[in-house]
Amino acid sequence: MATVESVKDLRTPALIIDLDKARRNAEGMLERFHNLGVQLRPHMKTHKTLECADIMTGGSRRCIVVSTLAEASFYADNGYDDILYAYPLPFDKVESCAELSERLSLFHVVVDNRLALQELKKRPLKQGKIWDTSGVELTGIYAHCGNTYACQGEEQIKAVARETTMITLQFMEKLKAAGIHGTKSSIGSTPSCSHPVPDMAMLSEVHPGNYIFYDVQQSLIGSCRLEDVAVRVLTRVIGHYPHRNQLLVDCGWAALTHDGGGRLPTGYAIIEGHPELKLLSMTQEHGRVEPISGKLDFKQFPLGSLLTLMPYHACATAMMHPVYFVHSKGKIIDTWKPTRGW
Amino acid sequence: MATVESVKDLRTPALIIDLDKARRNAEGMLERFHNLGVQLRPHMKTHKTLECADIMTGGSRRCIVVSTLAEASFYADNGYDDILYAYPLPFDKVESCAELSERLSLFHVVVDNRLALQELKKRPLKQGKIWDTSGVELTGIYAHCGNTYACQGEEQIKAVARETTMITLQFMEKLKAAGIHGTKSSIGSTPSCSHPVPDMAMLSEVHPGNYIFYDVQQSLIGSCRLEDVAVRVLTRVIGHYPHRNQLLVDCGWAALTHDGGGRLPTGYAIIEGHPELKLLSMTQEHGRVEPISGKLDFKQFPLGSLLTLMPYHACATAMMHPVYFVHSKGKIIDTWKPTRGW
Ligand SMILES: Cc1ncc(COP(=O)(O)O)c(C=O)c1O
Ligand SMILES: Cc1ncc(COP(=O)(O)O)c(C=O)c1O
Repeated sequence: MATVESVKDLRTPALIIDLDKARRNAEGMLERFHNLGVQLRPHMKTHKTLECADIMTGGSRRCIVVSTLAEASFYADNGYDDILYAYPLPFDKVESCAELSERLSLFHVVVDNRLALQELKKRPLKQGKIWDTSGVELTGIYAHCGNTYACQGEEQIKAVARETTMITLQFMEKLKAAGIHGTKSSIGSTPSCSHPVPDMAMLSEVHPGNYIFYDVQQSLIGSCRLEDVAVRVLTRVIGHYPHRNQLLVDCGWAALTHDGGGRLPTGYAIIEGHPELKLLSMTQEHGRVEPISGKLDFKQFPLGSLLTLMPYHACATAMMHPVYFVHSKGKIIDTWKPTRGW
Repeated sequence: MATVESVKDLRTPALIIDLDKARRNAEGMLERFHNLGVQLRPHMKTHKTLECADIMTGGSRRCIVVSTLAEASFYADNGYDDILYAYPLPFDKVESCAELSERLSLFHVVVDNRLALQELKKRPLKQGKIWDTSGVELTGIYAHCGNTYACQGEEQIKAVARETTMITLQFMEKLKAAGIHGTKSSIGSTPSCSHPVPDMAMLSEVHPGNYIFYDVQQSLIGSCRLEDVAVRVLTRVIGHYPHRNQLLVDCGWAALTHDGGGRLPTGYAIIEGHPELKLLSMTQEHGRVEPISGKLDFKQFPLGSLLTLMPYHACATAMMHPVYFVHSKGKIIDTWKPTRGW
């Protein structure tokens, strides 16, 4: 495909990222936790790109969270360090984790049972690394307040954030009482970190991820405004079906996913500028669009014209795209390629 | 990752393909339509690999269907020809289609409205190609009996196949009556082509795709037996949660998709050899497994042990994997890389 200058000329379906919004989302989060004196350790799983990682870490290339070893290796290979693999240590991956620990100055793994600890001890580290010298060292406690996803509005989010913070800090007290000092504490989801409560200042770290893009789900929870969402899927009208009162568009689940289950009043996504339309259903490469009520005015949507979809769940939608088109005010300025696999 | 010999040693989650079953599925389909004297034009959208295409075309590398231009270019670049792009012609892709038509000996596009025809005529082909000399030539009628997906059992499938065949052939008669001769006719979905009715012998072509893998959905429709399903996702137990009566496994929607909506009695997949278990829910990289009823016997599922998931919808699951591990009787013999994007 020839390089194009404007998002309007992209071959569809295409995932586009508004760089100004993504930057603003990232800067807001950095500032929020800088002010609270808490280290932000952003999660990479939503975008899996080097470019977003640079924006989220403010250029430090240090202190990130990953959800897969593929992400861990990708960032390690590209000069990132202080990487936390936030996953109950899978036994088939101990060797790869050990290699990453030996290569990097800091690579953190998470264990939630005794057996995993034994598996780690079976593979002592070379080069005088910590998990070599003292067996295994506990560096911190990691909790994820995923229950913020059931919240509606800032007040509910804050209540969950307050509770999670309290439970985490109480656990730290128990550790101290047992003679275990100097451990770090980390909580955080995009909802709770978008509206932090003052108590969170007592934590060492937070680890949200989705906020770089946000999405329709986050706006419904109350994490952001709809205008903060930095990601869209562009699609074109490819069919008029007056007998069904429907448009056909070239975005199916291959480009959007079925995530969200179509439960929005507007179906599987929000069609920007067209609150009267619903993305009713999708096949692999087709989407069916109809009005929420009444007759569709087909003249408004000529064959070949563009529609812009705001995804329900950005993490799921981004994962369907081998390339993201990055724009500022509609002008394409970059293409980013995420890593994939495990 | 080091190369491994057995599927048991793969890093999980991993998509594995039983080559013997895939071959048997492909040979069965070739034979079925060879016997009916109908050309099989297999669809590539389920797997998007060169290796499966070779198996499905019986090595001819001719006469395939694709759902995206990315697939079309991928196969054209790799020596395939006679490619049908089974998609209502998107106007932004006319130039790319024209280039493919000029490069290949046969590249078919599908139009379902007059405007698309005008768009094609605006871009005459070079090199004395047909769509250049006579404007645009109609080569055939393409219908897809997607309504077979609502069927249960062979009899219902056959009734839909019979009806679709009849409607298509009646339309061919009307074309002839209008003086349009020599046009081809093509119908077909995996359900109807797995149980063809005798009338289908009067068609020129059929175009199923999913049958190379089959999946749980196809077995429920009645297209295949569960033992014909050639694709699995391997996952490992990474957590025991007795207070929730649940196992945690390392397969989330990133490796399986939410397709099927969890409506199987066993949730989002069938766990091979464990009809008593249900894949209840998933996050991006985690799956929650619980018994359909009663208490879970955790000793049967030690941390690190493997479970094998049969996906509800193979097309959706395959698309999540950048590499497929191909085995015969559990021994890995190849890795296949699908194409992606648009
Ligand atoms: C373990 C873990 N940490 C951090 C995050 C990031 O949270 P969010 O997606 O709300 O930004 C997630 C998200 O699922 C997670 O699973
Ligand atoms: C236009 C078209 N042709 C052929 C097929 C292949 O049918 P199946 O997936 O049932 O094998 C599909 C599948 O969706 C399709 O959309």
